[in-house]
Formats: sequence, structure tokens, C-alpha cells
Amino acid sequence: MSAVVPPSGFASLDPLVRPRSVAVIGASDEPARIGGRPIAYMKERGFAGAIYPVNPKRATVQGLQAYPSIDALPEAPDVAIIAVPAALAIAALDDLGRKGCRAVICFTAGFAEMDDAGALAQLEMTAVARKHGIRLLGPNCLGVFNDAIRFYGTFTASFEKGWPVPGRIGIASQSGAYGTHIFSAALDRGIGTQVCITTGNEAEVALGDVLGWMAQAPEVDVICAYAEGIRESEQFIAALDLARANRKPIVMMKVGRSQLGGAAAKSHTASIAGDDAVTQAVLDEYGVVRARTTEEMLDIAYAATRRIYPAKNTLGVLTVSGGAGVLISDAAEAAGVAMPPMPEEAQAKLRALIPFCAPRNPVDCTAQVTNDLKLISTFAESVAADGGYTSILSFWSQTAAGRSLGPKLHEIMKGVREAYPDRLWVMSMLAPNKVREYEADGWLVFEDPSRAVVAIEAMGRFGAAFAKARTPQAAVPLPQVALPGTTPSEAVAKSLLAAAGVPAVPEHAASDSEAAVAAAEAIGYPVVLKILSPDIVHKSEIGGVLLDVADADAVRHGFGLLLDRARQHAPAAKIEGVLVAKQIKGAVEMALGVFRDPVFGPVAMVGLGGIFIEILKDVSFRRCPFDTAEAERMIRSLRGFPLLDGARGRPKADVAALARALSALSAFAAAAGPRLAGVDVNPLLVLPAGQGCYAADAVIELA
Amino acid sequence: MSAVVPPSGFASLDPLVRPRSVAVIGASDEPARIGGRPIAYMKERGFAGAIYPVNPKRATVQGLQAYPSIDALPEAPDVAIIAVPAALAIAALDDLGRKGCRAVICFTAGFAEMDDAGALAQLEMTAVARKHGIRLLGPNCLGVFNDAIRFYGTFTASFEKGWPVPGRIGIASQSGAYGTHIFSAALDRGIGTQVCITTGNEAEVALGDVLGWMAQAPEVDVICAYAEGIRESEQFIAALDLARANRKPIVMMKVGRSQLGGAAAKSHTASIAGDDAVTQAVLDEYGVVRARTTEEMLDIAYAATRRIYPAKNTLGVLTVSGGAGVLISDAAEAAGVAMPPMPEEAQAKLRALIPFCAPRNPVDCTAQVTNDLKLISTFAESVAADGGYTSILSFWSQTAAGRSLGPKLHEIMKGVREAYPDRLWVMSMLAPNKVREYEADGWLVFEDPSRAVVAIEAMGRFGAAFAKARTPQAAVPLPQVALPGTTPSEAVAKSLLAAAGVPAVPEHAASDSEAAVAAAEAIGYPVVLKILSPDIVHKSEIGGVLLDVADADAVRHGFGLLLDRARQHAPAAKIEGVLVAKQIKGAVEMALGVFRDPVFGPVAMVGLGGIFIEILKDVSFRRCPFDTAEAERMIRSLRGFPLLDGARGRPKADVAALARALSALSAFAAAAGPRLAGVDVNPLLVLPAGQGCYAADAVIELA
Repeated sequence: MSAVVPPSGFASLDPLVRPRSVAVIGASDEPARIGGRPIAYMKERGFAGAIYPVNPKRATVQGLQAYPSIDALPEAPDVAIIAVPAALAIAALDDLGRKGCRAVICFTAGFAEMDDAGALAQLEMTAVARKHGIRLLGPNCLGVFNDAIRFYGTFTASFEKGWPVPGRIGIASQSGAYGTHIFSAALDRGIGTQVCITTGNEAEVALGDVLGWMAQAPEVDVICAYAEGIRESEQFIAALDLARANRKPIVMMKVGRSQLGGAAAKSHTASIAGDDAVTQAVLDEYGVVRARTTEEMLDIAYAATRRIYPAKNTLGVLTVSGGAGVLISDAAEAAGVAMPPMPEEAQAKLRALIPFCAPRNPVDCTAQVTNDLKLISTFAESVAADGGYTSILSFWSQTAAGRSLGPKLHEIMKGVREAYPDRLWVMSMLAPNKVREYEADGWLVFEDPSRAVVAIEAMGRFGAAFAKARTPQAAVPLPQVALPGTTPSEAVAKSLLAAAGVPAVPEHAASDSEAAVAAAEAIGYPVVLKILSPDIVHKSEIGGVLLDVADADAVRHGFGLLLDRARQHAPAAKIEGVLVAKQIKGAVEMALGVFRDPVFGPVAMVGLGGIFIEILKDVSFRRCPFDTAEAERMIRSLRGFPLLDGARGRPKADVAALARALSALSAFAAAAGPRLAGVDVNPLLVLPAGQGCYAADAVIELA
Repeated sequence: MSAVVPPSGFASLDPLVRPRSVAVIGASDEPARIGGRPIAYMKERGFAGAIYPVNPKRATVQGLQAYPSIDALPEAPDVAIIAVPAALAIAALDDLGRKGCRAVICFTAGFAEMDDAGALAQLEMTAVARKHGIRLLGPNCLGVFNDAIRFYGTFTASFEKGWPVPGRIGIASQSGAYGTHIFSAALDRGIGTQVCITTGNEAEVALGDVLGWMAQAPEVDVICAYAEGIRESEQFIAALDLARANRKPIVMMKVGRSQLGGAAAKSHTASIAGDDAVTQAVLDEYGVVRARTTEEMLDIAYAATRRIYPAKNTLGVLTVSGGAGVLISDAAEAAGVAMPPMPEEAQAKLRALIPFCAPRNPVDCTAQVTNDLKLISTFAESVAADGGYTSILSFWSQTAAGRSLGPKLHEIMKGVREAYPDRLWVMSMLAPNKVREYEADGWLVFEDPSRAVVAIEAMGRFGAAFAKARTPQAAVPLPQVALPGTTPSEAVAKSLLAAAGVPAVPEHAASDSEAAVAAAEAIGYPVVLKILSPDIVHKSEIGGVLLDVADADAVRHGFGLLLDRARQHAPAAKIEGVLVAKQIKGAVEMALGVFRDPVFGPVAMVGLGGIFIEILKDVSFRRCPFDTAEAERMIRSLRGFPLLDGARGRPKADVAALARALSALSAFAAAAGPRLAGVDVNPLLVLPAGQGCYAADAVIELA
């Protein structure tokens, strides 16, 4: 699917993030007050543009000429910061619009995060911003900084700890506290954040706009994002698509994953938390890596600063400790990083040098190498050249810090890396004093090798996503879908789905018992009989399904029995007869479904039937529509996939047909539009390979 | 079960770790050589005991009088270090034994880790040690240090980075490189290791001995252990038991968890890697916390240095950022730490102070508190006093580092902690300059709150294990078991198990068809018929099981059919007739089993039947025997447990009866002795609560 970039384009945030002039409404002469901090910061750091304090009570603010009102400003500022009480904020926004200002950062709190009256005021604020075409950040936000131009439109106190150091991390955060926490934690590690944008209540500018701006801005190479809830999908999806196309990795912390967290997220903001599984599916789709902890976010962002993203990532490990090699192998398996063995000849070569080394991968060169430093070079070179790994993790524990060996090891490692600059070179060592030296040579350094492995895995995931962006898939063709006016019967639901490419079990409707017998004879025994009524959705609950109906007499008897049961349990229901269907045995039962996510629209689901879905939640989700290749990836990601793949002596199931049906269902849902509330195809019976799959039951729910 | 402490007791390692005199065989005048380092270290740090260098070529070594031979030593040293080539090591060991030395540390490599000849030499070394009653550490080990007495019987180069700092961590490691890596990584964090013992090839002293010594040694409060494979169970189990009884937490890195890692572990050492699931079950049994990464090991060891281990751990969170609160809630749910809400009255009290705070738990006091510092104190006090949490995590991001607020916050927090010194107080902040100050006041400090949560969870797990040790369970009574001479038939297997407390489905053996009919009439229809033969183990594979046998005629027909099939598919089998069994419907199918682990002996397993075991590996293990309470814990730990607990509209299953059967099976296995190779009870049919459970099939395999 091609991304939909909003008409104005993400560059419409330029005045917010790259202004040439800044007005501060509610400017304070006190550098530590909210209305004083931006001015103090920009003065101290030398912002080159004009700063216009607005304060009716003062002639100057922090030594700058002050203006009594917005109207009195000498020009329309590129951006204005609103730092006045809530009661005055909307009027200030309107004044700014009339003055011609098109970008506003609103620090002021007391809106949707507070109460219903605040939410109403925020709606008014949005309307005023839209009326003037203002890009409005906030309210209730901590603002923006762009260190490249020394613009600090923020009242964060983080700078008390230090100014940003050089680097090209961009932070996009709904939470001001968390956004600046990331900035500060990165700073402590020497990782440079150039741009930080916090969106607060998102009355107008939302996280997607900010991600999109960063995706196209040269100030930013690597994006750290924090979200509590995604409020709109269009710009968000477009931003993820653009970031992927521009090879800018996004590492995201999306909180509210747990039930506990979900409850807290709702009490914290007015977010639509959405279904976490859907958010996860969208992030997966675009190769966004979701960090589980803040530390992991920083590890991944740090690793990404090398800008080496191997599309087919393999890990070679060179270790001076066999134990660490085992530990790293465990971590690689857990993270899903491939560690193919070294070629046999290379192993033989290394074994000839150190008989008791373990040269497979991990390549354990043993402490023996410390007696002959040339060996280190030979081993490292072999891992790179012979092994051909895209990522190389070298474990040296405290050896790297040694008084004698440390400097020599550094020189050797520097040389090897320079000979293979396209690899992701990672050092794991206990040598705090050496970290900056190795980093300066292009190495990543992690004390803990397990953390290094997690970061290396993420680089491969980014690489795979970027490669996918280069070979865009053909658009999924959408069928013509004409939904009926009211909830369709099972038969109608199945024929609608069959027309769209989700085949149904061969069946015929019969309005009397002899028609049922004729249908059964045409289909072949045994058959299944089901009551046919638009008013009875869950047939089995009233005994409305008969299995193993074996001959004509049984069909006649069953027909009467079903009608009796329907009259008894649902006397008001309109009865159209019975459905006569082929009984299929030996199939794997799957469940397909579609539901409408409030943010991301129709989402398709696939799972193995019964307990797999109900007890284990073993399902896979994806936004509709998607092609059969993606459908097959979803199917293969199920924990229960072995059941389709010949486990327990079964024949392999027709996964290709299942993937076609799932993709077709996704196209149906995309074509059907918002009146489609949901679809359940349960069970979908998947026969052995080559024999197809058939919907045995289907429910379509309309809004 | 009461622990079996070896006859000599763990204190038999005292001379190894707390010697009053040390001989170094192969002593070197060069302080950087393997035979020189221990002497150099002990001289530099002032070891108070005698040091006897043995070197036939020198009169002095590093300024100390040298001795030409072991025989020439003025006394039998408490401990001797062997640092001579492999060819001379065994003779040196024998000489030491004759001299009267009873503790030896063997640095020398070239034994079982090398090749078969080395393995043979190592066996000889073990025999020599045993002959003299020597406790032998190594060979191929990095040695021991005990900083309390400045004894450094090790050639590690780690001390180049710095000497141990005060602290009471004990490191017990099979790998020398990894053991000193942990020491060095802990040192970088300011965590003090007092004792470090590396076991190398474990020719005599194994990891269990070392853990046991630490469990009773006052030098050690907290144990960090590293293992690649556990070689013997008796001392190991006794050590875990003693450590638990003495409230000494063990955090263990056991590598080889993955298939990849398992392969690497085998090429790295001669370990019996054992089944990782069994090791995990043993560690769980004694409350050993298994670290997933080195960093996690250090985090947990660091947290344990406070020696606060809440048996019923609850977490209260005080945060200045709502976003961080959500993130911490997610982490707590993932780790399994309970975060009960604050009492309603306390919430109301806090809400009266800051209307827009979120006082539930996490207690988000909002940045508002920074305007009125008394509020911080009130909020923190309320979390401790009103919330009553055993662990309290306080998140302050970079606020704690602020020039103005930082010192004031510190003073407030110090006061609150002092009022509630029994709680585990944890600070999460970005204030590297403040860490040591908070630690000095008794706080734990973690930059990343997610890591703090993982460490807090571990403290609760230790506490629960220590509490369990205080209320020892009654010994599980073992039944009388007389195993037959050859593999028993299904009927015999079931009667053996039934006698031991695992009930079987009502059934009778019938040698002719009329006896089968009589049995069926007694049991009640429908029945199941199964071929009865000691030679046919897997009946269903030859069509030897008939279900739904509904009346006398069907029994007669089935009897003949089964005999025909048996003659056709297994003509040589001895056929004893058929089994007639009650057919049970509507039960949950479980699988129970026993297998013999080469290290830990009989291990019982429980899982839900069918795909749960075969595809999802959803099983729980435990060493035999164990009581019904433990059996029920195993059952409840299954992911598929909801199937037993009334999911999908089922009645709740008889979990109590299932637990009794599982515990009884474990007692049977423990009583049966080593001839019992395995037991499979599959399926075990569990009826609704109060109706019991029945083994429908059972196989007993003999060695």
C-alpha cells in the first residue's frame, strides 16, 4: 500500500521546529519560570533568530524588548509559545492566528487531561487553530528543542544537567516527562539528541505528524518515540512508511501493554489506548522496533547511530571465554539472531593455530591468544572474512582494560574493523576507560553481551524492513462488495465471502425435506444439517446443527427435528428451511476474523480453532488489506503452526489455500467500508495440501 | 525433604578458602606469571599466613625463601597451589598428600577439557586426591580468593583493574573467565566480592561443595553462581537447602539454555548438560533465582545486599511522571509483582492535596509536588504507611539531580526511609552524582525502573523460599514398590500404580469373549476394549483399541476383531485376551510421566494431553517425591490450566484428585529405585470436581 501523506506534507511543521523568529506569550523575566526558561535557554546558547517576549507589564524581559500584546509584535513570528493561564490561552491563540502566526507551542495545562470542561475548551482550541491554519503543539506539552539551531521552545529543567551533545537522535514523545527522561538518560551515556518534540494533549499536531517530520528532516537519523495511545492512523501510518523508505529506524516505547498498565494509561491521559495487539501489528508491519524498557530503547538507538542495518543479519561471535560464548548463544537464540557456523576450512585453519580453540561460532579463541597477539588479529579477520557475518560481537571481559594487553588489543581491533567497515562491530568488555576510544573508531561497546545481542537483532529487523520498502508489493486488488441492508444469514454471509475469495463448504439451502434429500444426494453423504434463519445467529446453542447425517431417511428426520427445535427455542424467528452441507473430516480447524479498530480500521485475525484461540490467545493480527505472502507470514507466526505443518503424523495442511482465504478476507473487509463491524469465519476447515479450505460457518456483523 | 549434608560437612573446604599457610608448587619469581601471581598478590595485600614457594631452581622467589621440593617444606601447608605442567601435576598432588596437605588448588590445564588421555589422567588425579583425603579444586581452574584474609590463591589478571572493595558477595563459578568477569563487573558498580571460587574441571570439589561452603560461611551474604552443567546432585541439593535455611540468596547463571547454547556448552567442557527443564525445576524448588543475563545477575545481587527479602512482596510506586508509572505497571505485570491499590481513604487524602494526582498505585504525585516539597514527604509517607507495601519504587527521573531540588529531595527521602527501615526502598533516577549518597542511606538505586522491578521481584522470590524453609513440609511417605522382573503389561502397570495411589479406570481383563461380556455388564456400557499383551506397548498403532462398544454383541465382535488384528500385526506377541474398561466422557485429558535424569534422578512431569504437550511443550517438572501442595502448584503453573478451571463453560475439573495422583506417582518413582526407567500415564482422565481422576493407559519402562 502506498502511504497517504497529508496535503500539507510533514514539512508543515518546519516553523515549529526550525523557526527564524519566536514570540513568547506570557514571557517572564525570571529565567527559572515556565515563561522565562525558553528565553533564558535561547539567550545562553545563542539562538540566531528574533525573540519577542510578550508581557503587558514590562518594558523588557531578561534584557530583551518586551511587547505589550500580540498585536503589537513587529512581525508575525514563525512560532509562538503560549505560557499564559488556561483562561487566556485560547484568546492568545486566536490573536496569534490573526497576526499571521502559523505555528504555536502551547505549554498551558488544564484542558482534556483535567476534566470535561477542559476537554470542551480543548475542542475550541483545536477549532481556532484549524480556522487559522495553525500547526498547534499541545496544550499541556513540554515543547520542542532543535539543538542544531539552538532553538529551545521548552520549559524542561533537563538542561540543568547539561546541554545536548552532538548526535542525530530525534525524540518524539506524547509525555513531556518521559521525552526529557530519554533525552537525559541518553545524555548520561554520551548519546546526542538533536531534536526533541513532545506532543502533550495533541489538540492538533499528533505523534504521527512529529514522526513524519523527523522522517524527512536532515537533523534526525534515528527516532525514539514514546506513545501512550495512538489517536489517529493516517499520518501515523504515512510517517512510519516514510521513515522506512528513508531508512530511518524508529524504536518505540508504547506503554499500556499490560492490563495493569492499560488501566493506568487511561487514568493518566485521555488517550484511546486501543488494542495493544493491533498497535503491535502495525509497528511490526513497518519494522518499528518496540522497546520493552527504557534501557533497551537507548541500547537500540545507540546501536542505530552507526547506521548499519543488515537486511539479512547474521552474528559471528569472537570470544576469549567459552562460558561467555555459551551465554551469547543462549541470548542469540532467545532474540532470534542467526549464528551460522564458520566454514569447515576456516575452522580447520583456526584449529591448526590453537589446537584447543572452539572455532565453530561462537569462535572461542581461548586465553591462549593473549600469549601471541598476532593470533587475535588472525581470528578476528577470519570471523569477518571467512565467516562473512554482517554483525560481529567480540567478547573480551576485563582483558581489554589490562595495562599491557589493553592498548595492543585496541590497535588490532581498530585495524580489523577498518578492513571491514560495512560490518556492525560490537565490543563487549569491562573497560569503562576504553569505551570512548573504541566508539571513536566506529565500534559499539556494551558491557553486557546479552544487551548487545538484543540491539544487534534490532539492527537486522530495521534492515529487513528497509529492504522490504525497496521492493514494494503490488496493491491488493479489492473486490466489489455490496453489503445487505440488515445482518445477513449464514448462507448469505458465506456467499458474500465466497464471491470475495473465501470458499465455503459445498452446501445448498432446502425449504422442504425432499429438497434437502435432493441436495444431500447431490453433495454426497454424510452431510451436516443446519437450521436456516436470519434470526438465529448461534445455531449450536439451540441444537440447530446435526452432524453425520448418513442417508435420505436421516435427512428427512433431521429436517423435522431442526424445525421443531427452532420453533421451540426461537418461536419468533423467521425460518427459511435447512442448510445441507458436505461433512468434512480430517481437516484442521482454523478461525478467521475481522474487527474494526477505532484507530486503525479493519484488522484481520487468524488463529487455530478452539483452545488455541480461547485459552492461549494464539492469534496473529494485521491491518486490512494484505497480500497472500503477508497472510502466510501471519499463519507461520502462530505457536500452533506445527499442527498445520504435519505434526503428530498428520498430512501437511493446505497453507497456501488458507493464506489465499485470509488475504481475500482482508480485501473484503477493506472494500466493505465502515458499515462492516466484524466477520467471523469459524471454523475454516483446512484440508491437506492441494485440497483447499472451506468456511464451515460464517457470521457478518454490520454496524 | 531434609537435606543430606556430606559426612565431612561443607566446612571441609575451610583450608581451601581460609588457609593459614600456602605452598605454591611451581612458584615463579616473575609476578606476572601464573606461578608468580598468587605470591605477588598476597605479598602486596599482606596475607598474614606463611607463604612457601616451591621451586628447585631458586633459593628465593619474590624475596621469599624457596623450597626445592614439597618434601622439603617445613610443615604441611593448609593449602597448596599446583602451577606445574600437566605431566608433573599428579606426582605433585601425591607428594602433597604424603606431606599431609589436605587442600589443593590445581591451576594446571590439559586434562578432561582436552582429550581422552587428559580425561584418563584426570580420573587418576581424582583417585590420588581421594586416597589422601585431599579436597582438590580444579584442575584447569583459576583458583580462589578470600579478601577477608587477603588470601589470593588465583592467577586472575582481574586485580590489574583494582582490588576487591568491601562487600559480602560470594562468587561460585565453574568457569574461571566468567567468575572473574562477574567479579570485575561488580567491582565497576561498586559491589564488593569477598570470596570467589572457580571450580574448573571439578575432578573432586564440585559446584555444590562450593555453594555449601558459602551457605555456612560468615564471609558471604549473597551468592552469585555460574554453571554450565551440574555434575552431581547430592551436595548440590544439600547446598541449596542449607543456603535457603540460612537465608542466603543464590542468583545463578546456568548457561546452555538454548539448543545452540547447549551444543556450545558440550564442546566447551566435558559437562553433562542435563535437561535444562530439570535444572530449572530444581532451582525453582529451592528458590534459586536464575538470571537471564549477567546484568540481571548483578542487579539481583546488588538488590540482595540490603538483605530485605519480603516473603509476600507487594510493590508501591511513587512517581513524578504518569508515563513512567504506566511503564512500571507493565514491567510489574510482566515480572509478576503484585501492585495492590492504595486504600480508598488514603487515595482521597492525597487527592485532596493535589486534585489532579493519580493516587491509586502507581501513585503519580505529578510535577506539582516540586512546588511544595512538604507534599513529597506526605506522598512518600502515605505510600509506606497507608499502602503498607514491602517494596517501594520511587521514580524521579532527572529531578533528583537538579541543582535546587536534588538536595532537598534527598533529605526528604532519607527521612522517610529511616521511618520505615524494614521496607525495600528503591530509587529510580537520572542522577549519577547522587547514587552513592542514596546508597549510603540504605537505598537501592537503578537508573532504569524496569530493571529495578525485576530485582524487586527476585527479592520477593527469595523471601518466599526462605519462609518455606521455616515451615518444612512433612516427608512424603513412600509406598512399598516391587517392580516385576520384566516390562509389565498395561494391566499390571495400572495395578502397580493404583496400589501406589494413581487410580485406574474401572476395568477387567477377559481371556474369552463371554468373560469380556460379563465384565462389560458389570462395568456398564459403553465400554472400551483393548488388546492385552505384554509384547504390544503401543496398542493404538495396530488398531488395538476400540471405543464406544455399546452392547454385548459388540463386545463379542470386538473381542474377535482385536485378536485378529493382534495376530496379523504382531504374530509373535503373547496375547492374554482383552481389557474391558469403563468409557469415560467429558473428562479433561492430562498426561503424567516420570523419567530418570542422569544427575537428579527421577523427575515427574505433568501436562495437558495432546497438542498442549506435543506442540506447545506446556509441561511442568519436579524432582520426586513431592507432596500434593507442590503437585497442585505444578498443575496451576501450566499455561493451559484454565481448561481445568472451568474455561469454555466446562465444569471445574477435580484438580485436588489430579494433584493427589501426581504426588502419588512421584512417591512411587522415588520408591521404585533406579530400575524404573520411566512411567507414562497418558491419558489420565480428570472428571469434574469431586469425581476423581483415572488413568486410562499406563506404561512402565524398566532399565
